[in-house]
Amino acid sequence: MRAGPSQEEIRRHNLGTLLRHVHLGGPTSRAELTNRMGLNRSTIMALTADLTAAGLVREELPKDTGRAGRPSLVVRPESARVYVLAFDVGVDRVVAARVGLGGAVLDRRETTHARGSFDLADLVATLAGFARQMTRKTRADTVCVGAACAFSGGVRHSDGYVRFAPNMGLEDVPFGEELSKKLAMGLPVAVGNEANLGALAEHTRGIGVGCRDLVYLHGEVGIGGGIIVNGQLMGGMSGYGGEVGHMIVNPGGRPCACGSRGCLEAEVGERALLEHAGRYGEPLGRDGVRAVVEDADAGDIMAQDALHRVGNWLGLGVANLVNIFNPEIVVFGGMLREIYLGSAAQVRSRVNTGSLIASREHLRLRISALGDDATLVGAAELGFSQVLDDPLEVLARLGN
Amino acid sequence: MRAGPSQEEIRRHNLGTLLRHVHLGGPTSRAELTNRMGLNRSTIMALTADLTAAGLVREELPKDTGRAGRPSLVVRPESARVYVLAFDVGVDRVVAARVGLGGAVLDRRETTHARGSFDLADLVATLAGFARQMTRKTRADTVCVGAACAFSGGVRHSDGYVRFAPNMGLEDVPFGEELSKKLAMGLPVAVGNEANLGALAEHTRGIGVGCRDLVYLHGEVGIGGGIIVNGQLMGGMSGYGGEVGHMIVNPGGRPCACGSRGCLEAEVGERALLEHAGRYGEPLGRDGVRAVVEDADAGDIMAQDALHRVGNWLGLGVANLVNIFNPEIVVFGGMLREIYLGSAAQVRSRVNTGSLIASREHLRLRISALGDDATLVGAAELGFSQVLDDPLEVLARLGN
Repeated sequence: MRAGPSQEEIRRHNLGTLLRHVHLGGPTSRAELTNRMGLNRSTIMALTADLTAAGLVREELPKDTGRAGRPSLVVRPESARVYVLAFDVGVDRVVAARVGLGGAVLDRRETTHARGSFDLADLVATLAGFARQMTRKTRADTVCVGAACAFSGGVRHSDGYVRFAPNMGLEDVPFGEELSKKLAMGLPVAVGNEANLGALAEHTRGIGVGCRDLVYLHGEVGIGGGIIVNGQLMGGMSGYGGEVGHMIVNPGGRPCACGSRGCLEAEVGERALLEHAGRYGEPLGRDGVRAVVEDADAGDIMAQDALHRVGNWLGLGVANLVNIFNPEIVVFGGMLREIYLGSAAQVRSRVNTGSLIASREHLRLRISALGDDATLVGAAELGFSQVLDDPLEVLARLGN
Repeated sequence: MRAGPSQEEIRRHNLGTLLRHVHLGGPTSRAELTNRMGLNRSTIMALTADLTAAGLVREELPKDTGRAGRPSLVVRPESARVYVLAFDVGVDRVVAARVGLGGAVLDRRETTHARGSFDLADLVATLAGFARQMTRKTRADTVCVGAACAFSGGVRHSDGYVRFAPNMGLEDVPFGEELSKKLAMGLPVAVGNEANLGALAEHTRGIGVGCRDLVYLHGEVGIGGGIIVNGQLMGGMSGYGGEVGHMIVNPGGRPCACGSRGCLEAEVGERALLEHAGRYGEPLGRDGVRAVVEDADAGDIMAQDALHRVGNWLGLGVANLVNIFNPEIVVFGGMLREIYLGSAAQVRSRVNTGSLIASREHLRLRISALGDDATLVGAAELGFSQVLDDPLEVLARLGN
């Protein structure tokens, strides 16, 4: 237990907080910042001046406010100048984007690929190639303040080492380190599990803004989870927290890629859905899932039954998570958006019978607001986290 | 997002942190406090002087240190003067204690009672009666700085309202408010779920000191859970977080008091154990559980089988929690100490087959270090939390 912060630490914290306000809330008047941060006008002026000098924000007169009197200056993030590189490595596609302070995607590259084993060197080369294409086009005064990647697998949070990614045929690879080397920008690459970053994205910019306790479930081949506890992303001891896809909901049930049986992802994943619908050998992925949901909607009994069965296990899993976390909201992302929309009645019914009244009385079940970009947006937020924690330190380190 | 703390807030934080050091660590030299808190000697002196003037600590010369030079003064908590009232309402017993700053139990009263429905008025009268007996005997200069209760049920954290306590026949009772009124000491009574407070106790004073991610499982009639996430007790949206006893581990399994089936507490609770062992109609409670474990140890096949079955479900539940939380330690408390000790091999084996390698590689499974007092110790810590957060404010409010 340490003592409270020093004056210098408080200044850094306040600079970061002000920057976070304009990063997340967009252009904000000085008066509003004064109000939201609980500081006086002169302190806000001084902080803004420091951030302006560092090139992170600029101030300008607002458009006609319609009110009498001198208008308060508006503080804007320098979105075109300050950016991060955000990457998203999923089972079916790989995305790279240049995301400006404030959250706008300035540029992006994407490639799909067939399912199967990834080669680490190829993957890293693809991502670094995209990054080079995008950074080559930037103006001379732009500055990259961070890089981060959402990865479909279990990632050690200390160093971005990928421990397991069975759906991508990767295991024990120093992914963050390799990508950082290949980028050759002198930047470390923070790596996070895709569902963890999806949770972060929905919490900061999506359907869960303002919720302090949120469960995000991300469906791809498997099912990942990201949990926000009291406003903070839960990582557990080493960063593997949130692997709710391997919660056993049906002991002795369908075999899972992890070696166990009856895991949530084995019972609810796309393979379970397609097999229950009698569609053996059909292409997996989003299209296959969508076809089942559409056919069920059109009256296909087998498709309806498949959604019913999968919805039952999904509901049981959600009920367990509601009892465990007493969350304000559960968000369905990735392919689970389709599955949830196709089985919502079943899921809700199972949640109602399987969770305590007190634990679910204020609960909302919702689909992701950020859609397919949730994980990429989360990666960008992870990339920005350092500059938002200590803006001047990061710029000084970069030599700005 | 608010700005950093003011100078006055930092001073209050530092006073609280210093007090917490001697409360949890016992008498500590000024030199050691300087070191641990990262403050200079003169600041530590000033903080100690304030806490001494408030009657919360005193300074004295250490016993012979065996070293040359002027010894650093030792700061001690005023354990005999400053105390909280801690209560523990379980299914089989009710405890009240006077606990001094520093954690020593100065006085205690306890009564057992038969299982069945509680009457709120009787319960509150019993607890307040115990409190009166204990406070009547105190010296004139003692001061009660807080009161808190561990309760075997679901408690809303904002006001200590008990939402559900099926094993005690209580539902929707304003327990905290009624106890506070009956105590008539002008103090609110904070109320927490017993397993939540057991987790807090093991984290601050038990087997989990220093662990930032801990799962505590408490067995009584049911099974409660308390989870420490990144050093903080997880409450969820309204305080009902951690109800892992109602995680469904065996869909369609044994009926549970909550109305669902196959909940962890239905499959692992004392009733399941005794029935699997063929002991229908035998007295429940700790003695019944102990008898099964002892008989299994002595070679009783049915008792061994019962422990094996119960251990299997307990292991599956723990495996799920390990995947979800990636904890450093899982602690078994209450009656689960006996059950875990009697089925440890089975539990470990199930955890190994049901959880991801990365999530369990540094995992420790342990029994509670505080034993039957874990929940009471947790209540005392909850009672002390206000004075540790802001020592002078609490004393000023009490008129000291």
